[in-house]
Amino acid sequence: MPPVGVPLVIEKKKWAVRASEFAKSTFNPIRFIVDSMKMEQHPDKYMISLSIGDPTIFGNLKPHNATIEAVHNALDKMTFNGYAPTVGYFEARSAVAEFYTTPETIISPNDVILSSGCTHALDLCISALASRGQNILMPRPGFCMYRTLARGHGIHSKFYNLKPEASWEIDLAHLESLIDGNTVAIIVNNPNNPCGSVYSKEHLLGILQIASRYCLPIIADEIYDFFIFKGEEFHPMASLSKNVPILTCGGIAKRFLVPGWRMGWVLIHDRNNVLNVEVRGALNALTQRIMGSNTLVQGALPDMLRNTPKSFFAETIATVQTNAEIAFEKLQQCPGLFPVKPQGTMYMMIGIEMASFPEFATEFQFVERLVSEQSVSCLPGKCFEYPDYFRITLTIPKEQLLVAMNRIIEFCYDHYIEERNVASNIVLIKEEQVHTLDQTIPHGFHT
Amino acid sequence: MPPVGVPLVIEKKKWAVRASEFAKSTFNPIRFIVDSMKMEQHPDKYMISLSIGDPTIFGNLKPHNATIEAVHNALDKMTFNGYAPTVGYFEARSAVAEFYTTPETIISPNDVILSSGCTHALDLCISALASRGQNILMPRPGFCMYRTLARGHGIHSKFYNLKPEASWEIDLAHLESLIDGNTVAIIVNNPNNPCGSVYSKEHLLGILQIASRYCLPIIADEIYDFFIFKGEEFHPMASLSKNVPILTCGGIAKRFLVPGWRMGWVLIHDRNNVLNVEVRGALNALTQRIMGSNTLVQGALPDMLRNTPKSFFAETIATVQTNAEIAFEKLQQCPGLFPVKPQGTMYMMIGIEMASFPEFATEFQFVERLVSEQSVSCLPGKCFEYPDYFRITLTIPKEQLLVAMNRIIEFCYDHYIEERNVASNIVLIKEEQVHTLDQTIPHGFHT
Repeated sequence: MPPVGVPLVIEKKKWAVRASEFAKSTFNPIRFIVDSMKMEQHPDKYMISLSIGDPTIFGNLKPHNATIEAVHNALDKMTFNGYAPTVGYFEARSAVAEFYTTPETIISPNDVILSSGCTHALDLCISALASRGQNILMPRPGFCMYRTLARGHGIHSKFYNLKPEASWEIDLAHLESLIDGNTVAIIVNNPNNPCGSVYSKEHLLGILQIASRYCLPIIADEIYDFFIFKGEEFHPMASLSKNVPILTCGGIAKRFLVPGWRMGWVLIHDRNNVLNVEVRGALNALTQRIMGSNTLVQGALPDMLRNTPKSFFAETIATVQTNAEIAFEKLQQCPGLFPVKPQGTMYMMIGIEMASFPEFATEFQFVERLVSEQSVSCLPGKCFEYPDYFRITLTIPKEQLLVAMNRIIEFCYDHYIEERNVASNIVLIKEEQVHTLDQTIPHGFHT
Repeated sequence: MPPVGVPLVIEKKKWAVRASEFAKSTFNPIRFIVDSMKMEQHPDKYMISLSIGDPTIFGNLKPHNATIEAVHNALDKMTFNGYAPTVGYFEARSAVAEFYTTPETIISPNDVILSSGCTHALDLCISALASRGQNILMPRPGFCMYRTLARGHGIHSKFYNLKPEASWEIDLAHLESLIDGNTVAIIVNNPNNPCGSVYSKEHLLGILQIASRYCLPIIADEIYDFFIFKGEEFHPMASLSKNVPILTCGGIAKRFLVPGWRMGWVLIHDRNNVLNVEVRGALNALTQRIMGSNTLVQGALPDMLRNTPKSFFAETIATVQTNAEIAFEKLQQCPGLFPVKPQGTMYMMIGIEMASFPEFATEFQFVERLVSEQSVSCLPGKCFEYPDYFRITLTIPKEQLLVAMNRIIEFCYDHYIEERNVASNIVLIKEEQVHTLDQTIPHGFHT
């Protein structure tokens, strides 16, 4: 510092305002990958987007009236306009605690931190637990935001493999091999985006065993906790451990079909006061950076959680499950494609036998050409650190899904090089046969 | 990194989950200071809080019906439930651009980034411009969040002095003396919290001259841009410069009396494409960390900005200005106190002649005792890096303000040591004479 009153002579000759390292290293690879794609659709075919991870975009899945009414009521009360505590109103946190409390897992309002959506909840957890140079284990394939959030802070991402041949279970030996002295947490995403897997109790216990052995807390991303297909069972990570501290991230986005409302939470499952020492305070402090989440939605949370009927959730799941079954059945018969059957969420991953499509060097090129020839957009596996696969979204209206599957099959037939006899069972539906197509669907490459 | 398949033997014997450096260095000093205060109110006097920076808390200042209706309508449209672009809907950004466009300053929708409140807008700007080890100039006294936001990232805060004797203008020579090779931006808060100052055009030009000479961009915190008392004039920083890049932070919190709704913005005033090189992209990237702001409020923004009548804003200001005049007049006559007349905002700073109150070592103790003897809470100057002063909020109902002023005067008489003849003009209103007191007012030490 110069002596007071003696300014350094550093007057500059020209403007050169640079961005910070933090900002430069915060980037969403999906945006980057998608921006670099050639996105010219086929001129004679309307676009069908299977890439968008927003269940509301097609208009077939809408929030329930009770959810909407809860916000109308909160507005009319005129008591939710001022600042709330940055962790959220007590009443709103109580409602979330009540919603998630089970006989095995009792959650108190003080264990709930409301956030501006689930991504913000993840940001809070990652930012609270890891410092520059430390590392966090995360799934591959996986939701790209984990890495995006970590990288800004100089936190390293170490990717453990999921096994497509075992319904995307974690390769536990690989996970364990990645742990080193700088590892501070494990992110487990269950149910999983992009894979649609829902882990068994035994598998979750296997993960917990490793976490316990190395004394590593778990960030459990359970935003799809209710998106469980019939016949499958979801076990909250926190219900299975008595000693591993778990930060569960969730929110109303997918369950209530209102991702834009930005209401999420961290549930703090502390054991033996491990997180009380520093982490709870850290999470609290970090909520102050944006002064908490929207108070109208907070005010509406108690009614929303209590009054939105279970049948509404069941209907949403039934719609998506039906689509999952249709897509799986269709693509399973498609030459060169290997769909992996999902057990929940809104997504399915499909493997590409790249050797059978010699025109395409990567799945990226496969997806690009699917757009230009068939006007169907999907996300290339590259978006999830996983080449040779692509992800489709299952929330689209069934009629459009059928057309899209048809087009993908036609595309594969056009480019598959090996002669096979697998096509005999496939009945290609002509597009003219599919009614009620809404050709004004917005499209794009959001996730 | 260990060779693949050979896990390091680092199994731990016990749990010790630490918080990150980022979280540990993100703390709000006000919370810290206030938590350390003895807050026992006088048992016979109901509490009057002059510490809370939330205009809605007393119930006398409410959002206009047009503001509320705009959100009702956005809800009913059912088109604002999905994800918006993380910088905000185009229509919402257009409405903000239109709202702030003047003949001299044309703002395009692409120059607007919506944020989750103005604090988030500040976070975006600070995080986008400065890296670890660099520094930002900020006012003293000043809004503590600037430092809180910077510190987490290892960005140094350098405080330039404001001059109480010149209506809190910036000591420009001092500001200039602080600039060094690591300085990357200057934060200017006008109108100013906690001082209530509104800078003249000439003074703002003086600041811009320095920014221009050292090629430093300005972060203009103008959240109180409409809180201008009659007879004063506000000049947006961006309207006065043709070459200094300016990021203006604002939002609906104070103007529309809805701070909990978390809707703010950054207006990018680029000149000669200086910010286009990196900073615009950096701000965009950083909005992805929380996936943007609440879509319902975004959907309501166009109607809210167009339909809320100007008379509503005028009434709010008139209420606060009347309070400011009452408080100034009362406290000016109070022994040992030196109120500095505000020209806008919702605050006033009051100097304490500490030598005349030998019982109190600091203004902190003065404020503590004011609570225990008179049940009036204010924020000590320490919260703004400025000892020997305290801040009062002027949004409280007039009747309560009168009682509070009365009590402060009584308190000063009780503790002032010099015999003076200044009290002759002061007519102490007996509390019984003040009607319509709402004794159920919430109190606390929020800012």
